[in-house]
Amino acid sequence: MSLALAVDVGGTKVETGFVAPDGTVVEGSRMRRPTGASSSTEELWSSVAECIRATMATLGDRELLGVGIGSAGPIDVQEGRVSPLNLVAWRGFPLRDRVQELVPGVPVTLRMDGLAIALAEHWVGAAQGYDDVMGVIVSTGIGGGLVLHGSTVAGPTGNAGHIGHIEVGGFDDPCACGGTGCVEAIASGPKTVAWARRQGFTGLTGEDLAAAHAAGDEIAIAAVARSGLAIGRAIASATALVDLQIVAIGGGFSHVSPALFDHIRAAIDERVQFGFVTKVKVVPSGLSGAGPLIGAGALVHRAELVPPL
Amino acid sequence: MSLALAVDVGGTKVETGFVAPDGTVVEGSRMRRPTGASSSTEELWSSVAECIRATMATLGDRELLGVGIGSAGPIDVQEGRVSPLNLVAWRGFPLRDRVQELVPGVPVTLRMDGLAIALAEHWVGAAQGYDDVMGVIVSTGIGGGLVLHGSTVAGPTGNAGHIGHIEVGGFDDPCACGGTGCVEAIASGPKTVAWARRQGFTGLTGEDLAAAHAAGDEIAIAAVARSGLAIGRAIASATALVDLQIVAIGGGFSHVSPALFDHIRAAIDERVQFGFVTKVKVVPSGLSGAGPLIGAGALVHRAELVPPL
Repeated sequence: MSLALAVDVGGTKVETGFVAPDGTVVEGSRMRRPTGASSSTEELWSSVAECIRATMATLGDRELLGVGIGSAGPIDVQEGRVSPLNLVAWRGFPLRDRVQELVPGVPVTLRMDGLAIALAEHWVGAAQGYDDVMGVIVSTGIGGGLVLHGSTVAGPTGNAGHIGHIEVGGFDDPCACGGTGCVEAIASGPKTVAWARRQGFTGLTGEDLAAAHAAGDEIAIAAVARSGLAIGRAIASATALVDLQIVAIGGGFSHVSPALFDHIRAAIDERVQFGFVTKVKVVPSGLSGAGPLIGAGALVHRAELVPPL
Repeated sequence: MSLALAVDVGGTKVETGFVAPDGTVVEGSRMRRPTGASSSTEELWSSVAECIRATMATLGDRELLGVGIGSAGPIDVQEGRVSPLNLVAWRGFPLRDRVQELVPGVPVTLRMDGLAIALAEHWVGAAQGYDDVMGVIVSTGIGGGLVLHGSTVAGPTGNAGHIGHIEVGGFDDPCACGGTGCVEAIASGPKTVAWARRQGFTGLTGEDLAAAHAAGDEIAIAAVARSGLAIGRAIASATALVDLQIVAIGGGFSHVSPALFDHIRAAIDERVQFGFVTKVKVVPSGLSGAGPLIGAGALVHRAELVPPL
């Protein structure tokens, strides 16, 4: 069996594993280490390297096809460098070359984690059979990626898919990127909880908000409605720009309540004159918790949909 | 010489002409008729057909390679139908098939006018040498089109490139599409003049506003600043989503003042943490007034960049 070594680098953890040609993670190959905002450059790298070595130790006599790396952004694909907003020690870190040194002789492909996830939704998830797809992750931040005309769109620097930094009409929340009213600044898990707390909510986490919503708490209901409105409007703008067929939404905060999806739908349906916008389907992610790993593996197994830059 | 028959269908006029392989319009082939909101379905079609016949009468013994149609949107490329917002008599009008009847035996390609213009900027305009391009027209409305990874992006229905319907943070102007704070509802020529008039400006047109701006009128200066801020923010959102290298802006209202471009630039540069956004170049269109025709011709001469849908 030919395997892809999948590497997922996020703000709180790094994960590695082997992904099989059928889009599943090979049992026993999955490794995880914390990353974290306070780690040094080499501490972060040690976590990645330990995971890779531990996964590689399980290869046995199977063939390694290649390595796929999905990283939090921004990244620089041309240079193979990453600068994840939440990993402050890594600014222009040469992740691709460092990984290549550990696994010589096989191709290494680096893309944003959101692109990898969109590709995984297209491959084995909720967007199978569609050629124009956006994957969205609603979690600590809001990220995503694009498949257009059946192929992934990375952009010249690899940063296409920053759906979290589309602005939303009627909102002026300041965003860490410097923008005004970016959907990430309004509707991520932490930002939604922060808004609820300003209205008097006393919980601290997305889980607290989910529990309060389920119990009928009015502030929690309003907070989820506000978040869904913003996400829906951002999807409407993205669909106006690139004519999407389907949007698959995952990430921890996407599970806060099914009502989130109702509010997203209603916001998109505001565009009553534009059938090509309101036609976009919005569905929950079809991937398991291993979605980011499967996505990184898809960079290898579905390489024909990942044009070189 | 092998020529493309170019057909541009807009809200106020239809134009046709032959476009040569060097991207110029053949002298004597250019024809124009008014369209207009009050025309009937067949009156509109008669204007198009008269233009096409008049242009075709100038073909002589040159070869006709194909027909390119750029139309105001929305459109339905799969069905070959157009429903331009400003041509209310045409809702699902079968433009592609009607044109094909007039010019049998050659391929006919229909796309949005904004896509055609983006392709023309990439071919012979301000975006030559770039693979990730947005063309923008600021006029009665705001339209545009995309070239990504060196190829045009039409989307499954042909409606990709509706840049005018990206929302803008901090604005809540209602839009004709049903959205809130769409950049077209804020920053088109008529919407900018309307805002100025609400502040006490007494002029009626974009030209009046341009003259007042040149004369140092404070309301005109504020109106152009507001328009530029909104356009810049919409470009920043688009760049976050698709990682653009360059945006070429044309259309009558883009000439209101060079200051418009300064405000666009400043708004994009607000995204201080995102170098991949602030890196986007914003330049005036490099096309002549024949830009839409050249774009329609490019659908034929640059057919390898126009994937079939």
